[in-house]
Amino acid sequence: MIPQQKPSGMPVHRYRPFPPIDLPDRTWPTRTITEAPRWLSTDLRDGNQALIDPMSPARKMKMFDLLVRMGYKEIEVGFPSASETDFAFVRQLIEGDHIPDDVTISVLTQAREDLIERSVQSLVGVPRANIHLYNALAPLFRRVVFRASKDEIKDIAVRGTELVMKHGEAYLDMTVIGYEYSPEIFTSTELPFSVEVCEAVSDVWQPEDGREIILNLPATIEVATPNVYADQIEWFGRQLTRRQSTVISLHPHNDRGTAVAATELAMMAGADRVEGCLFGHGERTGNVDLVTLGMNLFSQGVDPMVDFSDIDEIRRTVEYCTNLPVHPRHPYAGDLVYTAFSGSHQDAIKKGLEDLDRQAEEQGVDVGTLPWEAPYLPIDPRDVGRTYEAVIRVNSQSGKGGVAYLLKAEHKLDLPRRAQIEFSRVIQERTDAEGGELSSDEIWGIFRAEYLDREAPLKLNSVHTSSAAGEKDALDVNVYVDGELTSLHGVGNGPIAAFVAAINELPHDWDVRVLDYAEHALSAGGDAVAAAYVECLVRDQVYWGVGIDANIVTASLKAVISAVNRS
Amino acid sequence: MIPQQKPSGMPVHRYRPFPPIDLPDRTWPTRTITEAPRWLSTDLRDGNQALIDPMSPARKMKMFDLLVRMGYKEIEVGFPSASETDFAFVRQLIEGDHIPDDVTISVLTQAREDLIERSVQSLVGVPRANIHLYNALAPLFRRVVFRASKDEIKDIAVRGTELVMKHGEAYLDMTVIGYEYSPEIFTSTELPFSVEVCEAVSDVWQPEDGREIILNLPATIEVATPNVYADQIEWFGRQLTRRQSTVISLHPHNDRGTAVAATELAMMAGADRVEGCLFGHGERTGNVDLVTLGMNLFSQGVDPMVDFSDIDEIRRTVEYCTNLPVHPRHPYAGDLVYTAFSGSHQDAIKKGLEDLDRQAEEQGVDVGTLPWEAPYLPIDPRDVGRTYEAVIRVNSQSGKGGVAYLLKAEHKLDLPRRAQIEFSRVIQERTDAEGGELSSDEIWGIFRAEYLDREAPLKLNSVHTSSAAGEKDALDVNVYVDGELTSLHGVGNGPIAAFVAAINELPHDWDVRVLDYAEHALSAGGDAVAAAYVECLVRDQVYWGVGIDANIVTASLKAVISAVNRS
Repeated sequence: MIPQQKPSGMPVHRYRPFPPIDLPDRTWPTRTITEAPRWLSTDLRDGNQALIDPMSPARKMKMFDLLVRMGYKEIEVGFPSASETDFAFVRQLIEGDHIPDDVTISVLTQAREDLIERSVQSLVGVPRANIHLYNALAPLFRRVVFRASKDEIKDIAVRGTELVMKHGEAYLDMTVIGYEYSPEIFTSTELPFSVEVCEAVSDVWQPEDGREIILNLPATIEVATPNVYADQIEWFGRQLTRRQSTVISLHPHNDRGTAVAATELAMMAGADRVEGCLFGHGERTGNVDLVTLGMNLFSQGVDPMVDFSDIDEIRRTVEYCTNLPVHPRHPYAGDLVYTAFSGSHQDAIKKGLEDLDRQAEEQGVDVGTLPWEAPYLPIDPRDVGRTYEAVIRVNSQSGKGGVAYLLKAEHKLDLPRRAQIEFSRVIQERTDAEGGELSSDEIWGIFRAEYLDREAPLKLNSVHTSSAAGEKDALDVNVYVDGELTSLHGVGNGPIAAFVAAINELPHDWDVRVLDYAEHALSAGGDAVAAAYVECLVRDQVYWGVGIDANIVTASLKAVISAVNRS
Repeated sequence: MIPQQKPSGMPVHRYRPFPPIDLPDRTWPTRTITEAPRWLSTDLRDGNQALIDPMSPARKMKMFDLLVRMGYKEIEVGFPSASETDFAFVRQLIEGDHIPDDVTISVLTQAREDLIERSVQSLVGVPRANIHLYNALAPLFRRVVFRASKDEIKDIAVRGTELVMKHGEAYLDMTVIGYEYSPEIFTSTELPFSVEVCEAVSDVWQPEDGREIILNLPATIEVATPNVYADQIEWFGRQLTRRQSTVISLHPHNDRGTAVAATELAMMAGADRVEGCLFGHGERTGNVDLVTLGMNLFSQGVDPMVDFSDIDEIRRTVEYCTNLPVHPRHPYAGDLVYTAFSGSHQDAIKKGLEDLDRQAEEQGVDVGTLPWEAPYLPIDPRDVGRTYEAVIRVNSQSGKGGVAYLLKAEHKLDLPRRAQIEFSRVIQERTDAEGGELSSDEIWGIFRAEYLDREAPLKLNSVHTSSAAGEKDALDVNVYVDGELTSLHGVGNGPIAAFVAAINELPHDWDVRVLDYAEHALSAGGDAVAAAYVECLVRDQVYWGVGIDANIVTASLKAVISAVNRS
């Protein structure tokens, strides 16, 4: 009866388990995290380096401003010796006086003298900066990539540190220089050798009270369960002769999907500082995600020392700068993470929220001052500027299905995800106001009234579009504006652009911008009807609009009108 | 000089740290994972329940077939007492004889008698099934949701178990019935109370050799660092009086982004079985991701007992069934996870792969038989049907930038992500063949030759499109086909659909399908030029095509032609 799983046939013999660390007296499993670590954002270095579409200088500046606004005080801004654009950006930051007094920038460099000198040159004129030097210590790199002995590898680190000091003195007499050293692929390197090199580097730098050294221990590739990284960090920390003036820093990547955990356990094991990127960008699977780490602290009552109170704005900015999406299930920030689909979850959440309200009333205090405790919601979504969404399932003889399912099954409408969530909110408001369950006809009625049947202030009368090789799309459209038939003409790349240009000329000041667009056929065959969905910014508020028509162009224009009318 | 981070101003006072578990003699930190757990996929229950667009019966069947093909032997197929569509799907599986002999399905039920009876009825005729009963034990639920005492809550579990046995005997005389019990929100429940209820449930079920009980311990909401879950599991396992005949099962969610880690540590703490979903679907942030867990085992030389050797096919099927994307940085499966952007990473990987080849040659064996060891690649991408991609950065006076950056900066072309990766491969082949670095002119030349300048077998001559309210798009186009001017006519929802319909009528049997589409303007103002990108399936192979024209429609058609000509 017990299910027998079968060998997969995959070439398992090619892989070996990571050897465990011998640390029977480890202390980290009994510890908890009681304060935020020092954070370093490497969004502009490791993050940017791994974008298929690297940030333009304008996007870099937008990212830098976001990081500063959120409260990050250490920001790695580039790899100036490897990239002229990085060099130019560092100069722009310094010469444009963009770096606040309490923010320290850093630059990464390899250990070659010309590269160190070039990196130092990029920093001329900055009041404070950290220089971050790395070289690879791991056995595979010694054997295959550099063909060098341990002593030769150690000499590179020692000599590199001396060169940072030499060129720092030569070029940066007005700068307080900090120093960070990374024994690269720390996780795959023999621990005693990492300690030996780090001690030798510290011998050169001579950290002491008020002159720290940052030893950054990268999990450049995540190769073991997260407890192993914690063991490595605790072991390493015990060997240092200058632990007081040493900052132990983490730089985890997410190859095994456990970077957040590895970071947290390693913090419990004594690390002082964490390097990562917002939403986990960086090479391959990315660096550890600073948003999840910070919010995890927040959810335990520990101040992250970084402000996530408008998480959607952070997300939009990062998506804009990186040109990569945040997943709908991303902790704390995804589209779906404050959404309850299950009826029993919704019921429990409702009772939990009512209970909080009752407690607040009894104690005569604002509900926001009470300890947060609600089923299925690890934090109050309002604390990050979000709202709880109940996606209503509709009871009917044909079984329970989401509103989205119903619209699709019965009306062939395939709403984009954010439009579905928006409409769920409309439904939720109705059920909250009127109570009880909605029939599928009632839901369709609400949908029509909300998206399809509004005729003011705009209503489409007729459209004529023409496009031909070598010309822009031209559009002539007759629209009722506040009941009055008006002829509009617009030109643009595509009929929607032409139409939006035309209605933005009206005196209503809608300032419409199209954010997203989707369309599909409602049926196959010769009499096909199409549905169009547009997400519009209308005077800074986001609205979805829906249009249905036999002609796909007309459907699109109706969708824009739907959004404008809803605003 | 040490950066002073500042309080965030967020309402941290609303949250409390999770109290640690007192378990000084915990053993899990010294353990390693040496074999795969028993897996249960709940893609069709917890996963499906949290989709904004729940799966249709056809999609459910596709998911079920995928899970069976991959090797999952325990599959939770629905919540039949809560959903008529789930009930119907269970019947379809059983009556259509879709369940292989070595696969056990299970259904979830609440503890009410009518719901238990209905759940049991859904299973009539199946040779083997597990019935999975849950009720909430956590203090918040006792106090706020159910207003019930501990004894009342325990009675619900005990009585539910009795009812499962009673109705099982009544309806399922031909079925080997297994039993799974979940003390809901295990992680937030007092551990002794969870044990008390589970022992009482076991007293009813009477597990013994050959008659197991599955105790499933859900982290329904992830509320603490992952070591705490491991402590809870180890503590729980020590208290059981029938440990031998008890299967300890994990059901982690990912609210803190550490579900994979929590699962791994809890396996080290003694758990036997794991419930999750492919790519981590499920309520809110999702259930733990079975793909990452399985591949993590694989990467340590432990057979996952599930076949991931065509991970792209798994991903496509899950994306199709769930209508949600897999993130480009998702471990093992994302678009970008086998991509190296950094030049030093690329150099190291190249040397590592060469070293493996050399070893294989020296030993006279196939390289696939050697232990995998390459910088920056935790596994050989070929083991999951992927390839390593080096995204080339171009050295030039203007600094290093990706090919994508160059196309954008110098030619205003904003390639979609997968198109960028495809073109990087084209570039990579060229640099591998010819060596050295490419100038930006050379790259542009390669791009033109690959995407823009091909004129056979298809070349566009002239296009006339017309669309008006109430009509489908009609398209008349003159095309050179193998050098001969040919007039084509097509009708469709939009000009691309019309054009594809037209060229699929040609005798070449291209069987073109458009998978994805993007467009943008190349410049602002009156003389705007547009670029269009289409991802086409041409005879089962995926190709991107690019078209540039002053008219957006013409650009789209050129892009389709580009893809066809490249095939």
